[in-house]
Amino acid sequence: MVPMRFSYLGPRGTFTQMALMQVSSDESEHVPAVDVPAALRMVRRGETDFAVVPIENSVEGGVNATIDSLSNGSALRIVGEMLVPITFVLAAPQGTRLEDVKRISTHPHGWAQCQNWIADNLGDVIHVPATSTAAAAAAMAGGATNFDAALCNPLSAEQYGLTVLAEGVADNPDAVTRFITVGPENVPLPERTPSDKTTLQVQLPSDESGALLTMLEQFATRGVNLSRIESRPVGDSLGRYQFSIDCEGHVADERVQAVLIGLHRTCPLVRFFGSYPSAHQIPVKLRPGTADQDFSSARSWVAGLLETKD
Amino acid sequence: MVPMRFSYLGPRGTFTQMALMQVSSDESEHVPAVDVPAALRMVRRGETDFAVVPIENSVEGGVNATIDSLSNGSALRIVGEMLVPITFVLAAPQGTRLEDVKRISTHPHGWAQCQNWIADNLGDVIHVPATSTAAAAAAMAGGATNFDAALCNPLSAEQYGLTVLAEGVADNPDAVTRFITVGPENVPLPERTPSDKTTLQVQLPSDESGALLTMLEQFATRGVNLSRIESRPVGDSLGRYQFSIDCEGHVADERVQAVLIGLHRTCPLVRFFGSYPSAHQIPVKLRPGTADQDFSSARSWVAGLLETKD
Amino acid sequence: MVPMRFSYLGPRGTFTQMALMQVSSDESEHVPAVDVPAALRMVRRGETDFAVVPIENSVEGGVNATIDSLSNGSALRIVGEMLVPITFVLAAPQGTRLEDVKRISTHPHGWAQCQNWIADNLGDVIHVPATSTAAAAAAMAGGATNFDAALCNPLSAEQYGLTVLAEGVADNPDAVTRFITVGPENVPLPERTPSDKTTLQVQLPSDESGALLTMLEQFATRGVNLSRIESRPVGDSLGRYQFSIDCEGHVADERVQAVLIGLHRTCPLVRFFGSYPSAHQIPVKLRPGTADQDFSSARSWVAGLLETKD
Amino acid sequence: MVPMRFSYLGPRGTFTQMALMQVSSDESEHVPAVDVPAALRMVRRGETDFAVVPIENSVEGGVNATIDSLSNGSALRIVGEMLVPITFVLAAPQGTRLEDVKRISTHPHGWAQCQNWIADNLGDVIHVPATSTAAAAAAMAGGATNFDAALCNPLSAEQYGLTVLAEGVADNPDAVTRFITVGPENVPLPERTPSDKTTLQVQLPSDESGALLTMLEQFATRGVNLSRIESRPVGDSLGRYQFSIDCEGHVADERVQAVLIGLHRTCPLVRFFGSYPSAHQIPVKLRPGTADQDFSSARSWVAGLLETKD
Repeated sequence: MVPMRFSYLGPRGTFTQMALMQVSSDESEHVPAVDVPAALRMVRRGETDFAVVPIENSVEGGVNATIDSLSNGSALRIVGEMLVPITFVLAAPQGTRLEDVKRISTHPHGWAQCQNWIADNLGDVIHVPATSTAAAAAAMAGGATNFDAALCNPLSAEQYGLTVLAEGVADNPDAVTRFITVGPENVPLPERTPSDKTTLQVQLPSDESGALLTMLEQFATRGVNLSRIESRPVGDSLGRYQFSIDCEGHVADERVQAVLIGLHRTCPLVRFFGSYPSAHQIPVKLRPGTADQDFSSARSWVAGLLETKD
Repeated sequence: MVPMRFSYLGPRGTFTQMALMQVSSDESEHVPAVDVPAALRMVRRGETDFAVVPIENSVEGGVNATIDSLSNGSALRIVGEMLVPITFVLAAPQGTRLEDVKRISTHPHGWAQCQNWIADNLGDVIHVPATSTAAAAAAMAGGATNFDAALCNPLSAEQYGLTVLAEGVADNPDAVTRFITVGPENVPLPERTPSDKTTLQVQLPSDESGALLTMLEQFATRGVNLSRIESRPVGDSLGRYQFSIDCEGHVADERVQAVLIGLHRTCPLVRFFGSYPSAHQIPVKLRPGTADQDFSSARSWVAGLLETKD
Repeated sequence: MVPMRFSYLGPRGTFTQMALMQVSSDESEHVPAVDVPAALRMVRRGETDFAVVPIENSVEGGVNATIDSLSNGSALRIVGEMLVPITFVLAAPQGTRLEDVKRISTHPHGWAQCQNWIADNLGDVIHVPATSTAAAAAAMAGGATNFDAALCNPLSAEQYGLTVLAEGVADNPDAVTRFITVGPENVPLPERTPSDKTTLQVQLPSDESGALLTMLEQFATRGVNLSRIESRPVGDSLGRYQFSIDCEGHVADERVQAVLIGLHRTCPLVRFFGSYPSAHQIPVKLRPGTADQDFSSARSWVAGLLETKD
Repeated sequence: MVPMRFSYLGPRGTFTQMALMQVSSDESEHVPAVDVPAALRMVRRGETDFAVVPIENSVEGGVNATIDSLSNGSALRIVGEMLVPITFVLAAPQGTRLEDVKRISTHPHGWAQCQNWIADNLGDVIHVPATSTAAAAAAMAGGATNFDAALCNPLSAEQYGLTVLAEGVADNPDAVTRFITVGPENVPLPERTPSDKTTLQVQLPSDESGALLTMLEQFATRGVNLSRIESRPVGDSLGRYQFSIDCEGHVADERVQAVLIGLHRTCPLVRFFGSYPSAHQIPVKLRPGTADQDFSSARSWVAGLLETKD
């Protein structure tokens, strides 16, 4: 079997690579990309088999770069999702003592998520911005002297050979980021499981008050719950929206198909980005009348009405 | 071709027979029935081919006897509807003068619908109740002396050989009754037209607040309008309802099928009583995304998502 | 204290009088009326203090004569409701034996509700229609010879001095009719209790698809359940409806007031027929956010937003 | 009169300062802030009277930094909004020729919004990232030599004394950003106009499927349209959302108050961020039954029902 090639939001040692390690075998090739569009572009061009990118953070919300890069360009398919807890380590070259740390380099998001811990444990410290937490670790390993420690994840501390001064650094210890594995459009659909998710992009009919309500009723009428909804601009003028949506269930489920048919009929644009097992693996709780057999027996009944009875 | 046999709500000369005359050929046999259940029973037993019965009156509302007789018993199919304007004539034996009329026999509904006309034109007149307006005409023709004139429809005045003293008697000249032609379950469905109606019986899930709202959303989500809704008791306890519904469209329409599937999935009982051309012949105005081709292209799209792309 | 005068749907001994006896003291005057409109007319004219009339039957559904007589004419107020189980006795002059009964007189509704019992217990028996079950008893007491027994309620058997041949005659032993006590518009509102009902008449905006759905959402948004809904024609043309509605709660409840305000704003006609304790006395189960204090604290918050903060 | 102090998203010359110039008088003091939270913090601390910050971009969508900074921290009030078209100039030191430009510095968003123009007009050019478009202009004015031109707005070209090589640089000439003026909580509410907007933050009841639908129905039932909706994480776990919403109308409008009351009753958190005239000045189109007089006459009617009529 040929080893898989994965592009991911780099550089080496990012939380994204931690997510990637959950799904890739040892023989896989990991190709860091400078940003999310670049990681997806490699899949679109066939340079990698899959891309791993973040889609949602429990603190920062939806990752617009991912949502928009999926929307713009040729079709892609999400085939899986992974959760990574967002906790940091404070890492430095061997010999550095915690009390010597006066300047910390990290990505502004990382800094924001650890401000209280730093104030409580280190007092008045200067933030030296980096383009990613892993980049801070890389710079430190490369001999940077304009800061004393990097606030990064455990993986990059290890990969860049740094010493961990403090573990479990985080203001919100439950912070988590959701990552997705994205393949080309012709990748086979993952099999149905009891706890699937389906990701969609839906544009609303313009100039219609209540259009969002009407769109959501397409889901409600078939008993399909949403687990994520993000509004994104269509881009041509203010006040025109499309929505990035995760709903419960698999496109092989009748109720999800009925939702998709309803959306396709009534919305100017619907795109399907895949059905895949949810990371939390909690089985979807079906409402009465929404199982596959409810749909098929209803269809049989209607078909019978159309037949001549002789 | 064998002449058709029609049972109808009798006696001879009722508004129902006027409706029947709109659809029957000269060779048809007209069989009066004592009440609506009897007229439908003849169809169920194969004694007649079709029954004509009233279903809705613009003044009195739904005709419960018809709605309930359709619901209870073996399945029947509505194959057409007819509108009959409800205006009366004042009819009497030859020689009677309008100014001599002091006692009028008619059905209480007929009396109720002409009270103002009578007060304005005849002053203080006594009502002698009859079991139908045609029965009053029949009694008059049979020599009844306890009243001076019958308030009946033009047909029964003619059939019973009475002289018309006044025409167009009605407080509300726009009053109209809708009648239906009902056949056995195995009668062929009428062909689709641009202005069809479908008649249903739908029982709500019990003990669920908002169940009526949820049921109506099954129609709204597919852009199907209701033209009649009547609540009827399920019969086992107060507060348990079923609904008799006319909606726009034909069961051969995809949007109507989608409604039926949704109702079948979520309601404990759905019965289909037929799709047939509406009497007013005003084409149904489709909302965007609800035409057959919208459904079929949406289904094709979803089917494509399920295929392997290799 | 002056004794109350009650008009009711007569004649003496009807189920309606049984309902009346649940609420009237011994000194009350009971005035039978020939029909429901007449009973209500007496209240409108001040000839009686209250009327007792049926409004809903678990088998036959809403009583249109009552619903329409409330709607047409000057305003009235419902101040209470009573439930009466609908079971019959077979009554005859002393000496009649059950096996001699070959012809039974009763109202057609009574006949319909006992058909199976009669077939099972008496076999082939002829129905002699009467205008009410009590009228059958009265005729029997008056010496009528065209039938052998009256199918009536226990009260009229007693009042007309008949012997009971069989008790508990009913196909559906749980059949029940709901009656209401109706006073003039200026009667004081009954006090709030934990299990009130409010009765309304609501006309829909014409020519608006989804108007019923929109109207029901006025209730749903405030968490107010419906316990009865009947469609009635507006009367000017087919397809124009108004609804007779019972909802849970009292007009003194904030959530019911909010519903009424919403209906008044958006419907061409809303009439209030009273708030009164429900006969079943089951406390209304409030949904979160719909108690009076939820409304008043929300209003205070909004009022605070409008104040200048200096 | 004391001159007003405005903090804004700096540095000098940003699009934000262009928005600020639309509302500030010549005597106003403009205080640049390093980021949006800092600009708002100055208002919270009383260091400035108002802050001007971006809230929504027609291409990039909602500005999360602004939405989240409004939500977190003490209450603030939006008192106005301004639109600024997003078009750029290519600016350089005097003497630079367009054909010499091989390296351009600008913010990544600016670069993204002009990529096609640059490819068409300049061919293969290198992007040198800057922290804002104004920062690129400032660096160029400060003598930076690692790029040849700054892609910035006209204001910063002027402020930093640069020569404009090309005007109207933009891939989408209709791109526009919406900015808001934010004051402290005790600032007086702007007066009502025919085209107001109200900004809210609403948290959904957790673990309730259909919660978003239910929340939107609070708006629909009162005929209040949304002009913007953004989902933001509550922050404690994935799948828990709050929404940042702009709706039509002013908190002094009865229909908006009714929405606020409904939201306050049913949602765990509702925050009001102000009512202010919309920048586009198109009057809100009222739906029937939603004007102030509709609410007040409905309330009077309900109040009358509660009065004793004697």
